[in-house]
Amino acid sequence: MSDEILRRLDAVLADRRQADPEQSYVAGLHAGGIDRILRKLGEECTETVVASKNGERDAIVSETADLWFHSLVMLSHHGLDSGSVLAELERRFGLSGVAEKAARGKQGQ
Amino acid sequence: MSDEILRRLDAVLADRRQADPEQSYVAGLHAGGIDRILRKLGEECTETVVASKNGERDAIVSETADLWFHSLVMLSHHGLDSGSVLAELERRFGLSGVAEKAARGKQGQ
Amino acid sequence: MSDEILRRLDAVLADRRQADPEQSYVAGLHAGGIDRILRKLGEECTETVVASKNGERDAIVSETADLWFHSLVMLSHHGLDSGSVLAELERRFGLSGVAEKAARGKQGQ
Amino acid sequence: MSDEILRRLDAVLADRRQADPEQSYVAGLHAGGIDRILRKLGEECTETVVASKNGERDAIVSETADLWFHSLVMLSHHGLDSGSVLAELERRFGLSGVAEKAARGKQGQ
Repeated sequence: MSDEILRRLDAVLADRRQADPEQSYVAGLHAGGIDRILRKLGEECTETVVASKNGERDAIVSETADLWFHSLVMLSHHGLDSGSVLAELERRFGLSGVAEKAARGKQGQ
Repeated sequence: MSDEILRRLDAVLADRRQADPEQSYVAGLHAGGIDRILRKLGEECTETVVASKNGERDAIVSETADLWFHSLVMLSHHGLDSGSVLAELERRFGLSGVAEKAARGKQGQ
Repeated sequence: MSDEILRRLDAVLADRRQADPEQSYVAGLHAGGIDRILRKLGEECTETVVASKNGERDAIVSETADLWFHSLVMLSHHGLDSGSVLAELERRFGLSGVAEKAARGKQGQ
Repeated sequence: MSDEILRRLDAVLADRRQADPEQSYVAGLHAGGIDRILRKLGEECTETVVASKNGERDAIVSETADLWFHSLVMLSHHGLDSGSVLAELERRFGLSGVAEKAARGKQGQ
């Protein structure tokens, strides 16, 4: 399913982290250190804000994908992956299968 | 599976968008308009950057969850959801089940 | 005095806005439109945050200079300049010559 | 002259840094540590981007003033002030009185 995309992307990113920085954009980001990764993260966030203000759907999707992608690279740099973030979101929203219906009935956050 | 969390969160967010802004944080964000949502998105991005520089894993996970959460609210404000962004990432990385192994062997991005 | 630097920079920026985008970085930014200028502004803000977390004084000064520079280009794109922003800061803080001493005695912001 | 506003603001900020955090917004920012100051800096940058996209001149001036103000608080937290940043801008652009005319004739940055 499309839902497993983040998990697969985690695997791709872990793999490419070991690649030749001259050949792989991801390896190049890691080679530049966390400061370079964070610079890209901030840049993509601003581009997402600008795309959202422009209201162009393709650009919004594309820039948000860039934002998520670079946040996954940042997580990977710390030895983390999308799993921890999804687990945190699940915990906050009570999104386990059983709890979902109840959660959606409530307000809260 | 944990992989379906974003899809469930999309549903929660679509539901809460219709809620009373006095009762629901999400409805309150939408009531404040896209500018308020984007302000939060930018704020969470800076907090993610700061957490990453601090190297505290719990804070990194928590701030990244905030960043993704507010980007989902932004998508929802435009009538979009995580599905479009995941499809874009899948397209870029060739992450469909069959293509995955090949994709992981290549470098590129 | 060094205090007149922003005013002089305003004049330089107004002048270069008319220059050949192939020759002038500033003209190139304007030619790229406000989105390009804002992208740079956000990028420099993140770099300032990272430099501040690193605590390296030279980098903090250099990145803040980049941040101010690109905010001046943004102002210039809107036909504004540093004068309006300084007047706003003066108004908020009661920094006219006479009022200064009194202002410094008070708290407030 | 309005040009001395940043210098006066530096003095106000140095003064308020010593104030009671319960009474002074600036002292409160310092008490919250550099992370709190940077969070505000990032927030104001996003608000400046949004104001610029909206094209509302008053909001652009007001948000840029907020951005500069919080960058001055950040500098102050590191024992720096506007003087170092202005000197850096002067150095880059050759803005000393004599050099100004020549500088404005050239392109470069």
